[in-house]
Amino acid sequence: MVDLRSDTVTRPTPAMREAMASAPVGDDVFGDDPTVNELEEYVASLFGHESALFCPSGTMANQIALQLHVQPGSELLAGGDAHVVTYELGAAAALGGISTRTWPSVGADLDVEQIAAMIRPAGYPSVPTRAIAVEQTHNLGGGSVVPLSVLQSLREASEGIGLHCDGARIWHAHVADGVPLAAYGAVFDTLSVCLSKGLGAPVGSLIVGSRERMAQARVIRKRMGGGMRQVGILAAAGRHALENHISRLAEDHTRARRLAEALAPLGVVDPSKIRTNLVPLDLSKSSLDSPALASLAAKQGVLIAPMLPDIARVVTHLDVDDEGLDQAIVVLGGLLSGAAL
Amino acid sequence: MVDLRSDTVTRPTPAMREAMASAPVGDDVFGDDPTVNELEEYVASLFGHESALFCPSGTMANQIALQLHVQPGSELLAGGDAHVVTYELGAAAALGGISTRTWPSVGADLDVEQIAAMIRPAGYPSVPTRAIAVEQTHNLGGGSVVPLSVLQSLREASEGIGLHCDGARIWHAHVADGVPLAAYGAVFDTLSVCLSKGLGAPVGSLIVGSRERMAQARVIRKRMGGGMRQVGILAAAGRHALENHISRLAEDHTRARRLAEALAPLGVVDPSKIRTNLVPLDLSKSSLDSPALASLAAKQGVLIAPMLPDIARVVTHLDVDDEGLDQAIVVLGGLLSGAAL
Amino acid sequence: MVDLRSDTVTRPTPAMREAMASAPVGDDVFGDDPTVNELEEYVASLFGHESALFCPSGTMANQIALQLHVQPGSELLAGGDAHVVTYELGAAAALGGISTRTWPSVGADLDVEQIAAMIRPAGYPSVPTRAIAVEQTHNLGGGSVVPLSVLQSLREASEGIGLHCDGARIWHAHVADGVPLAAYGAVFDTLSVCLSKGLGAPVGSLIVGSRERMAQARVIRKRMGGGMRQVGILAAAGRHALENHISRLAEDHTRARRLAEALAPLGVVDPSKIRTNLVPLDLSKSSLDSPALASLAAKQGVLIAPMLPDIARVVTHLDVDDEGLDQAIVVLGGLLSGAAL
Amino acid sequence: MVDLRSDTVTRPTPAMREAMASAPVGDDVFGDDPTVNELEEYVASLFGHESALFCPSGTMANQIALQLHVQPGSELLAGGDAHVVTYELGAAAALGGISTRTWPSVGADLDVEQIAAMIRPAGYPSVPTRAIAVEQTHNLGGGSVVPLSVLQSLREASEGIGLHCDGARIWHAHVADGVPLAAYGAVFDTLSVCLSKGLGAPVGSLIVGSRERMAQARVIRKRMGGGMRQVGILAAAGRHALENHISRLAEDHTRARRLAEALAPLGVVDPSKIRTNLVPLDLSKSSLDSPALASLAAKQGVLIAPMLPDIARVVTHLDVDDEGLDQAIVVLGGLLSGAAL
Repeated sequence: MVDLRSDTVTRPTPAMREAMASAPVGDDVFGDDPTVNELEEYVASLFGHESALFCPSGTMANQIALQLHVQPGSELLAGGDAHVVTYELGAAAALGGISTRTWPSVGADLDVEQIAAMIRPAGYPSVPTRAIAVEQTHNLGGGSVVPLSVLQSLREASEGIGLHCDGARIWHAHVADGVPLAAYGAVFDTLSVCLSKGLGAPVGSLIVGSRERMAQARVIRKRMGGGMRQVGILAAAGRHALENHISRLAEDHTRARRLAEALAPLGVVDPSKIRTNLVPLDLSKSSLDSPALASLAAKQGVLIAPMLPDIARVVTHLDVDDEGLDQAIVVLGGLLSGAAL
Repeated sequence: MVDLRSDTVTRPTPAMREAMASAPVGDDVFGDDPTVNELEEYVASLFGHESALFCPSGTMANQIALQLHVQPGSELLAGGDAHVVTYELGAAAALGGISTRTWPSVGADLDVEQIAAMIRPAGYPSVPTRAIAVEQTHNLGGGSVVPLSVLQSLREASEGIGLHCDGARIWHAHVADGVPLAAYGAVFDTLSVCLSKGLGAPVGSLIVGSRERMAQARVIRKRMGGGMRQVGILAAAGRHALENHISRLAEDHTRARRLAEALAPLGVVDPSKIRTNLVPLDLSKSSLDSPALASLAAKQGVLIAPMLPDIARVVTHLDVDDEGLDQAIVVLGGLLSGAAL
Repeated sequence: MVDLRSDTVTRPTPAMREAMASAPVGDDVFGDDPTVNELEEYVASLFGHESALFCPSGTMANQIALQLHVQPGSELLAGGDAHVVTYELGAAAALGGISTRTWPSVGADLDVEQIAAMIRPAGYPSVPTRAIAVEQTHNLGGGSVVPLSVLQSLREASEGIGLHCDGARIWHAHVADGVPLAAYGAVFDTLSVCLSKGLGAPVGSLIVGSRERMAQARVIRKRMGGGMRQVGILAAAGRHALENHISRLAEDHTRARRLAEALAPLGVVDPSKIRTNLVPLDLSKSSLDSPALASLAAKQGVLIAPMLPDIARVVTHLDVDDEGLDQAIVVLGGLLSGAAL
Repeated sequence: MVDLRSDTVTRPTPAMREAMASAPVGDDVFGDDPTVNELEEYVASLFGHESALFCPSGTMANQIALQLHVQPGSELLAGGDAHVVTYELGAAAALGGISTRTWPSVGADLDVEQIAAMIRPAGYPSVPTRAIAVEQTHNLGGGSVVPLSVLQSLREASEGIGLHCDGARIWHAHVADGVPLAAYGAVFDTLSVCLSKGLGAPVGSLIVGSRERMAQARVIRKRMGGGMRQVGILAAAGRHALENHISRLAEDHTRARRLAEALAPLGVVDPSKIRTNLVPLDLSKSSLDSPALASLAAKQGVLIAPMLPDIARVVTHLDVDDEGLDQAIVVLGGLLSGAAL
């Protein structure tokens, strides 16, 4: 099986397993896990922030951050196709009572002027805007990257408003654009970053922010059920991944581009838009919807993800080599050729 | 004082007071108020629905309806400038755990294709869409009216999705477009309608829908604190308003248009867009923001509402006659002339 | 029909209707209704507090007050049989995210030491206690009255904790015990009081508290859908009731006691415990449950309320005279005689 | 340092680390982690249930279970000192909108008749009871054990009501009373069990229940942020713990009893009540409150947990041997002797 559903499917490498096996640990709910504490400090420092907090998932990291910024009765601005809007099962409203107003999302193509015009100040009978969430890279945008200059403009245009980065794949942006992580860190009040997607660690995300916000985040994490004990086992894998698996993401980007180029003649993807490791296939002109394509491909040993009815996603990662990619190209190419309308 | 802040400021007429004074009443929490029961039946019948429920406010009527359609973890689609998004203090998320995804609002100019494309079916990892809310007439859209044919297209394009109308001023649409209320009723699963805005009753809104939904609505209303006792006093005023104050809305429309035409040369409003009783003044090219304009106008005896920093609203209604309107035109015209950039 | 289900069923008197018919009104959402403003000031002054806020129901008044005191993640202490726990449809948790920990309720017999021992301070891993709610008189406690001295002890024992009184029937306590309303006001941080129960006004409750809390309460009221417009119509009835219907509650108390004495031989009520206008009938030793008893009594022209399976409630009020009471005694006595186990 | 704050502080044994290092893993969000899948099946089978779900913490396992049973607007019954009421930061209400009504908790001494009498059926104006939560063993009850016969009586007395067991330490009850786990499983609709407390695994709890409920639980877990990827790493440790660390809990029980006997003369604990591995110290007659005692003990190398102002907790576990216990007895004995009032 060539598993291209997500970069979350990677299995830990032997060196990563070794790092886990030998990690010193403690009870992290009491703040006593040295491996977690070191990881949190390390990640905070990468982004030039004071503090960080380990979480069981990117969803929890994002949701805690949103709860830090937005009280019930006030609002978040986000893209309509953002992960926090689309794939976190309504947690912002259901668990945090957070109102969300969305801009029409076109992936990472942020229209700063449009977003700034959406901000509603307190003092009117309307719902005040408290935070803006940006996704880097953008999942439904096909791994697209927001240029640093755009983020900096957004920061300037949104003074007094919390700025959160859903940075699950910020590593890919860093590699694709050559922007230092600290430069991203300087833009945002909080970021979530993920160890278990492209970096290949088994589990874990972190929130990054000020010491004061992370103290509040620790309380919210416990309420959400994210307080874990000797979780240094997982933190050790994450540390290993951060030190060894960032620069190699360039390989994943190259393979994703190669796949897009191979499938481009079938009209499902524009390879010039593929800059990182995600390749969304637009099936709106195909006779197959995404579950059908995924099901047929699986029978031929290639796994892809149905994200929305017209969008299937193909993802390159640590566990996909050139041979696997070739197989995916053959299988998907064949199925899509036959299904062209 | 000429009070143009809202059509909610109207005071009951002598005939309306007489209707209240003589209304038979009972305990409506027990379902025993004959005047309320008759009003609910009457309003349901106006829209061709089975049942209706009296509520203390339009906000409560809307929020109960949204809770009927959307469970926590699923989503509502609405315009970003809808009243339910902008002016109900975040109640959908804060009280109902309801996620909202918004389309870029341009008042009542609904883009049915765009909205239909936003619908996310169940069965994917994304948040399923359960309801769409439409506002008729549209408050921040300046009292604009959605044509019936557009609503009918939306109904066709959203099969299986709950369709709610925030019809606080649906009476104005009915008068402006000459569309029967039952034709609107045929489009929507639920509607909220208001007795205390243009119709001039002191208090009250109703939700309209199926008998089953209204039974659930009654439970939610009690939880929200909207169960009232001998509220037939208010229902009597509402009934009187429905029977006597609908057709006269045409006068308010005429006056609003006249005001818009008078102020048009100052670049704050396009009179061709003013079809009902709301006149939003666009202050983005003025040196005055909306609180400043409102404050200065008040000193000259004219009250208007600051809705957002760049938008002040002027509203005609039952208690504004031609003389009052003339005064408003003089005062606002003077202030805006001096403030043009 | 003799309607003894609740004191909420009273119909406005002619004088009260006259007060409504002539009340000056304005838009209370804008703070412009003089009759409401005067009523709020008057009620605040009765209890020696700074401010008050008119609400459409006692449930809303209570729930707003609870939200003022208790943030999500902290807790309220209340009796397990309190109205806020039993009859407000779970609003505290469902709408306010408020945790509640309950003491075993025996009506108004508050065990101050027990309650004080339940308080959990902040700074521990446990949920901090933010407020205590007390009901005066106590509904499921059969209209029982908490002595002022007990309330004062509770106030002393709960420093730093918000103290809320669900005073829907505090007027009855005032009349039964001869305690000035201001003495109750001095004990509590917030109180809710009801105009539409024993006092006989058609609709309305108020929250009483500090100016700062009432400003916040106004925002929450709007979110809950309790902002009403020319509601001075109702406030006028409330003012009339406050000025004319408090002292007469003694008559209701006398009648309730007389009913209890008449039914006492059947083992369903201890008349020595009936101090105000509520008479709970304990059906645990009867072959009839409360819905059955209510249904049979209704067929003979007497309406009572099934509150819980074993508890039916009989309530005296403004619209029940001696003749009606006699009829109730005959009907209920007959049914309960036949049903004794 | 002798760390007696909790049995959560244990560090994984070498054999457990070996199990983690060699565990086959997959993406558990996609249901592809074989080690997780096997663990879930194994734990379900231990309790005679159809299915189980791995969670990052006991808090999340409990809260998901409560959300399965209780919708907003209905209620849970639980002991006032239950972990779900006291130590989960108000999550039931804050995240799930769940109302809780509590019985006066005396640890594991369940009064079945009292609890049964609290159940409120649907069909009345009151909040319907949907679930009852029982804690086994009981944390604030000092590790006390509910006899199986009592649980069975509760099951009989609560037909139609969901019965949830917070079984974080159910292993200790199983060892102390010799009751098969499946016998506990037969009583409850859902159970949460913990791998990281007495059993010594680093992280993880499971919910146990029907296949249908676990399918819903999987959705709620994702919303709560508990979906993890190659979490078989942790599941492997849990499986090892289940197979190797249950019977040895008897040693922890013996040591806890020995500590209680040593401190009994100081009036802080009744050793006859210590049946498992938790020893609550009652400081109500000491001049030290729990933070003070914990702080002083820490300076002498003994860590204990301040649970509430008057209650400190001492816990025996896998990483405490006889020598460590002796040190704790000396240190705590010395401090408490000096502090006796």
